[in-house]
Amino acid sequence: MPAPFHPTRAFQAYQIFAANTDVGKTILATGLCRAAALLAKQKNRDVFYLKPVQTGYPVDSDERHVKTYSTGVNTETLYKYPDPVSPHIATDKPPKDEILLSETKQRLLNYVNQSKSKDGAYSFIETAGGIHSPVMSGTPQADFYRPLRLPSVLIGDSKLGGISTTLSTYESLALRGYDIPSILLFHNERYRNHEMLSTQLEGKTLVSAVPAPPLPLEDPVKEIESMRKYYDRLDEHMEPIMKHLDQVHEARFERLAYMEEKAKDILWWPFTQHQNVKQTTVVDSAYEDYFVTYNTNKDTKDSNNGKELEPKEMFDSCASWWTQGLGHANPKLTMAAAKAAGRYGHVMFPETANEPAMSLAERILENDKWASRVFISDNGSTAIEVALKMALRATAIRYGWSDSTPIDVLGLEGGYHGDTIGAMDACSPNVFNKNVQWYKPKGHWLQAPSIHISKGKVHVRVPESIQQNGVSQYGYDSLDAVYATDNRGDDPLADVYKKYVRSQLQGLRDQGRHIGALLMEPVIMGSGGMIFVDPLFQRVLVDTVRSEGADLLGYKPQEQPKGWEGMPIIFDEIFAGMYRLGRRSASDFLGVKPDIVGYAKTLTGGLVPLALTVTKESLFDIFLSDKKENCLLHGHSYTAHPVGCAVAGETIDTLESLARVDKPTAWTSYRENWNSNETWSMWNPQTINRLSHMENVSSVMSLGSILAVELKDEQGGYNSMISKNIIHKMRHGDFDYQGTGANINLFARPLGNVIYLMTSQTTTPERVRKCEEILFDCLENNQA
Amino acid sequence: MPAPFHPTRAFQAYQIFAANTDVGKTILATGLCRAAALLAKQKNRDVFYLKPVQTGYPVDSDERHVKTYSTGVNTETLYKYPDPVSPHIATDKPPKDEILLSETKQRLLNYVNQSKSKDGAYSFIETAGGIHSPVMSGTPQADFYRPLRLPSVLIGDSKLGGISTTLSTYESLALRGYDIPSILLFHNERYRNHEMLSTQLEGKTLVSAVPAPPLPLEDPVKEIESMRKYYDRLDEHMEPIMKHLDQVHEARFERLAYMEEKAKDILWWPFTQHQNVKQTTVVDSAYEDYFVTYNTNKDTKDSNNGKELEPKEMFDSCASWWTQGLGHANPKLTMAAAKAAGRYGHVMFPETANEPAMSLAERILENDKWASRVFISDNGSTAIEVALKMALRATAIRYGWSDSTPIDVLGLEGGYHGDTIGAMDACSPNVFNKNVQWYKPKGHWLQAPSIHISKGKVHVRVPESIQQNGVSQYGYDSLDAVYATDNRGDDPLADVYKKYVRSQLQGLRDQGRHIGALLMEPVIMGSGGMIFVDPLFQRVLVDTVRSEGADLLGYKPQEQPKGWEGMPIIFDEIFAGMYRLGRRSASDFLGVKPDIVGYAKTLTGGLVPLALTVTKESLFDIFLSDKKENCLLHGHSYTAHPVGCAVAGETIDTLESLARVDKPTAWTSYRENWNSNETWSMWNPQTINRLSHMENVSSVMSLGSILAVELKDEQGGYNSMISKNIIHKMRHGDFDYQGTGANINLFARPLGNVIYLMTSQTTTPERVRKCEEILFDCLENNQA
Repeated sequence: MPAPFHPTRAFQAYQIFAANTDVGKTILATGLCRAAALLAKQKNRDVFYLKPVQTGYPVDSDERHVKTYSTGVNTETLYKYPDPVSPHIATDKPPKDEILLSETKQRLLNYVNQSKSKDGAYSFIETAGGIHSPVMSGTPQADFYRPLRLPSVLIGDSKLGGISTTLSTYESLALRGYDIPSILLFHNERYRNHEMLSTQLEGKTLVSAVPAPPLPLEDPVKEIESMRKYYDRLDEHMEPIMKHLDQVHEARFERLAYMEEKAKDILWWPFTQHQNVKQTTVVDSAYEDYFVTYNTNKDTKDSNNGKELEPKEMFDSCASWWTQGLGHANPKLTMAAAKAAGRYGHVMFPETANEPAMSLAERILENDKWASRVFISDNGSTAIEVALKMALRATAIRYGWSDSTPIDVLGLEGGYHGDTIGAMDACSPNVFNKNVQWYKPKGHWLQAPSIHISKGKVHVRVPESIQQNGVSQYGYDSLDAVYATDNRGDDPLADVYKKYVRSQLQGLRDQGRHIGALLMEPVIMGSGGMIFVDPLFQRVLVDTVRSEGADLLGYKPQEQPKGWEGMPIIFDEIFAGMYRLGRRSASDFLGVKPDIVGYAKTLTGGLVPLALTVTKESLFDIFLSDKKENCLLHGHSYTAHPVGCAVAGETIDTLESLARVDKPTAWTSYRENWNSNETWSMWNPQTINRLSHMENVSSVMSLGSILAVELKDEQGGYNSMISKNIIHKMRHGDFDYQGTGANINLFARPLGNVIYLMTSQTTTPERVRKCEEILFDCLENNQA
Repeated sequence: MPAPFHPTRAFQAYQIFAANTDVGKTILATGLCRAAALLAKQKNRDVFYLKPVQTGYPVDSDERHVKTYSTGVNTETLYKYPDPVSPHIATDKPPKDEILLSETKQRLLNYVNQSKSKDGAYSFIETAGGIHSPVMSGTPQADFYRPLRLPSVLIGDSKLGGISTTLSTYESLALRGYDIPSILLFHNERYRNHEMLSTQLEGKTLVSAVPAPPLPLEDPVKEIESMRKYYDRLDEHMEPIMKHLDQVHEARFERLAYMEEKAKDILWWPFTQHQNVKQTTVVDSAYEDYFVTYNTNKDTKDSNNGKELEPKEMFDSCASWWTQGLGHANPKLTMAAAKAAGRYGHVMFPETANEPAMSLAERILENDKWASRVFISDNGSTAIEVALKMALRATAIRYGWSDSTPIDVLGLEGGYHGDTIGAMDACSPNVFNKNVQWYKPKGHWLQAPSIHISKGKVHVRVPESIQQNGVSQYGYDSLDAVYATDNRGDDPLADVYKKYVRSQLQGLRDQGRHIGALLMEPVIMGSGGMIFVDPLFQRVLVDTVRSEGADLLGYKPQEQPKGWEGMPIIFDEIFAGMYRLGRRSASDFLGVKPDIVGYAKTLTGGLVPLALTVTKESLFDIFLSDKKENCLLHGHSYTAHPVGCAVAGETIDTLESLARVDKPTAWTSYRENWNSNETWSMWNPQTINRLSHMENVSSVMSLGSILAVELKDEQGGYNSMISKNIIHKMRHGDFDYQGTGANINLFARPLGNVIYLMTSQTTTPERVRKCEEILFDCLENNQA
């Protein structure tokens, strides 16, 4: 896991990419180094040149060339291979990407330290060949260097055909999120590529054509002389380019500082008490699990260089509101999005079919074999509102309820289903809806027993209303035992739960209530505080509603029941579905399927909004009619936008291949840690155990990529302040990065007295370990 | 406007692109032609080779090369230039893109006709240079040929550096939506580029390395002999590749046929009565204003080739549910989306700032100077729900209403604000909400006078409840006169409206109602039936609510009114804002600003979902508190996803540059037609006039890109069937494409007895004219 490095206001760094081999990359890199050296003299700065990988060595040595034709430049080459071919062919002992990247970053960190005695530095990292030319492992350089995301100088191709290769290269870099402040190429009067490039890239980058070098001479002394003259001439062309880069760099840092100040004045953040926000985190970019952020260091605020902005990497430990599945800036998702955008844009959906929407629907139904219909919308809230529209109509028709009958849902206390008012009405009164003028609870909500690990032991905590004989806790040998719901027929709790559910339904009958649907989050109630509900309870609830719900509630069907029993069961899997818990559907833990399910969040891997409401034919059929107005009158303009559908398709592909059990995948080691392919977590069992023994921890739970720590707190709930200091330390503690001197933090959000950490589905054990270390650090020091 | 051409099951066509110049494009094109000719013989098909642009002629002639080394191939070159440079330099009299594209398509249409006597054909179009090498006008070929979107064979580069140029080229084609079934390159044992390309593109395309040609010989006779031998040897390598292409083509058409059948079985379309759907329109791709669709021709269903699928271009005349602003598959929007995806993915938004979100907010506030805060969500419905949450809290606090007070909105009859239940509750009972179990109207809705053009005259139609002295119609000289709201102070209607509004507010006071907000769509009520509301009415309504609303309603402020008067005014500009009507904000027509505005749809140019709720500090401030729970507890997971924000930024850039009046833009000719920079339409005034005189037309209206035709109909409303035949003919009439024999249709949707057509904001006058022709054709023939 390479240490983080990112440029600062004083420390500039550039990646030098090229549109092809043999376009003059080293010559123009030398020109840049010379121009930087001149500027560096004026500004009391250093200049560094780094060539991470050199092939054809020692005949070819870009470093030597730079050294020969410049002064005041510190040069270095990391890996050297004699064969003048692509690095992936030049060696059969390729170093791992992590190692090469780590060494590259370490050099840059060294340069930062070295240049601290001066007023800054200019660094240049020269790549080898074209941008997709691979490093030794075979990873294309454009992907390999992406975690650095250095501003890039693209050396263009001035030959015939060079317009095309340069533009394509530019696009490949741009779609990986690189900034390209400058394109440099040799002047060629015949092809004038620079003119067309300037036109095509107007307003995007500065395209500069500079004199081409003289033809090489055979006599090495004369050659050096000839080139020296050339470089002397080149300087006047390179200086303005270097000044341009300098200005762009300055402007970037001005902008970062401005954003930090200004954001809180013009943005209205969701779910945020603006009054409590101390500092805006400026996210300059992100990759895999990390945000790359810049923030003012308040201590050095008044230094001569203006506000000092410190770069930091923050582990996105709330998985960007639980959406992040496949890592930030995943190039596969980018390409899936770009291809769909380039093929369709958005295509209005009624009565049409397009490939991304169709294959997404097919893929969903391949897994959800109980279902046959896919309705597409924009977010979890809309997915649930659509589910409610489907279910309530079905129940009203089956039981002959009039239009004026007030229909309620049956749900769980602590459940949360979204922020639109209809979805809010489906939740019991809570902190999220209490200040919403139009909120009106429309339901009956049951208490739910929950799973906890305390002092190393797994147990079910049973709320008072459900308890029998005052037993409030039931112990289990392992999480596996709790989640093997199918095997818990003899569990004494099965009977306890059944009695509770029955009495609740009878109570509703006595009140004359009309219940139109059972709506709940299977396995885990997220926003409610990461409550892991006992799956047996949810299983018993569904079974009871189906087998005797109508009778217990006293409802008389007006038609022969078909396709669903009692009332439609809606599973809100927005958060827990799509492998967040390590299995495709949270319902897999319950051993029972819903009649309607909602998906969103990780469905699109953490890139763009999209939501699905999946259901069965018997619910679809009731909307068929001669009357147009009897159809499901719901549909957002961007329904089934091909970009979202394509990204979801690519996401599902990736997740399914991770989930395979027939061959090793990135999840294998996690599963081995837990001795289970079903009930496992990315977090270490030892960590869970240790946490569960801590003084200030009430209980712990973990499944899939989620770790939830319930802190001891008298007050509890959303307004709990107990986690405040801990979260603050996670965010701002500047935890040492394995002795490199570089720092990392966790971007965590509190949820009442529960602290949770969540990774992407593609994170590495090493990263998880680092997060665990930080968590212990914060919890232990808070304890003291 | 070039005639549409697209491949059919029998007629295959391929674009041959190359990763660079000098990679063997013509040689491998020849190889493909030879392999196709062999296959064609077996299958009784033709082979065509087309070189649209040749430079360096006659020394270079790719056509001659193909002719020399193949038999049974029909060859053609369109434009020939002697200078062996890029086409944009080779001539200073470049033909317009439309001409070149039209000629290319015409050739392909000719080949289709020619091959009708056989069982089909294979066609190959060879490009010049690399994919971004420009055609004569300077347009990159990858963009220029995009309307054809032919399956592409990419000739890769086998030289050192060729991995990179080939991969970048592949990406540039993919992000323009091209399918690339095959990458072909010469075998090079030293660099083995094909191996790395195969690895990188596994599962995406077939990468094949074939023998490289012999070194060229000086003696022309020997050279020909040597090349003949080479081609004979090459055939065995090319045949499987050609068969692969043949199979991919077959599979594509199988898939299209399957989708047409299957879509209606697994998708649940929004706002669609599935029972009424006769045929699914399979949208294979889209560009600018057009869908490229395939559908079974029912007549030829049982032919030997399986189902015959007919390609058609359909003008997207409902602008993909009013989202489409900048054309389908706009490469600028694709790049904006891809860059944001590559830089961030999604970044969770609370307390953070990222560049796309910040600059979007800044750009919005630059125009909406009355506002200071931007809240971001996913779609129009959520934007309105957020607006309601803001407004209702504000009113409740100002007037000291308790939590249990039922608060209503004031709105207009016929307004529509979205499909989530909260947004539905803000609308009067209508066809969209009547079957929604949880719908409960929470408002009072005023009648609204509307603008119409009948028999060439502009008039305002005043509903009975507003009328004074029984005058139901007021005539105006021009639309300009109606929309110059600021100048209508002396208009007798001003007084009529004021009296109506006052009496309505007093009536509400008498009923003891609590009105929390005025919510309406300025200028046009879209879903309600494209009703153009008299802007003077909305102006008077806003003015009255502000100046005397609290008094008339009998509300006593508990605090000193600050920032807003009476009640917050919410403008729903989801549909009408962002230049849909030719001006940035629909409020520009009213001459009055809201306190809260919602934007969506064209905001993102027709690519991905995003919505804004924009408001002012006085409304923001009431959510500030020591208590976290008093904040605006609303936020979707993908709130402010950088992809959406970046696309919105790019969209606004483009729209703003179109809207300029200080220099000619693509809108200039439309504005000139209407003699106005403010009140104008893309539709011709003559067309409006002619429509308004038709027998079966009750009235017409038009602004910006919208044309609405109200048909005479006894029944009226959403369920009106009057437009059914007309819409059917628009969709399936196969209108002749300017004598080319190619057909086009309009993808229109009915809205009760109103037929509307809507273009993108970037459409051309020629396209509008064609739509008008088709509209007249359909209306006149329906009339007869």
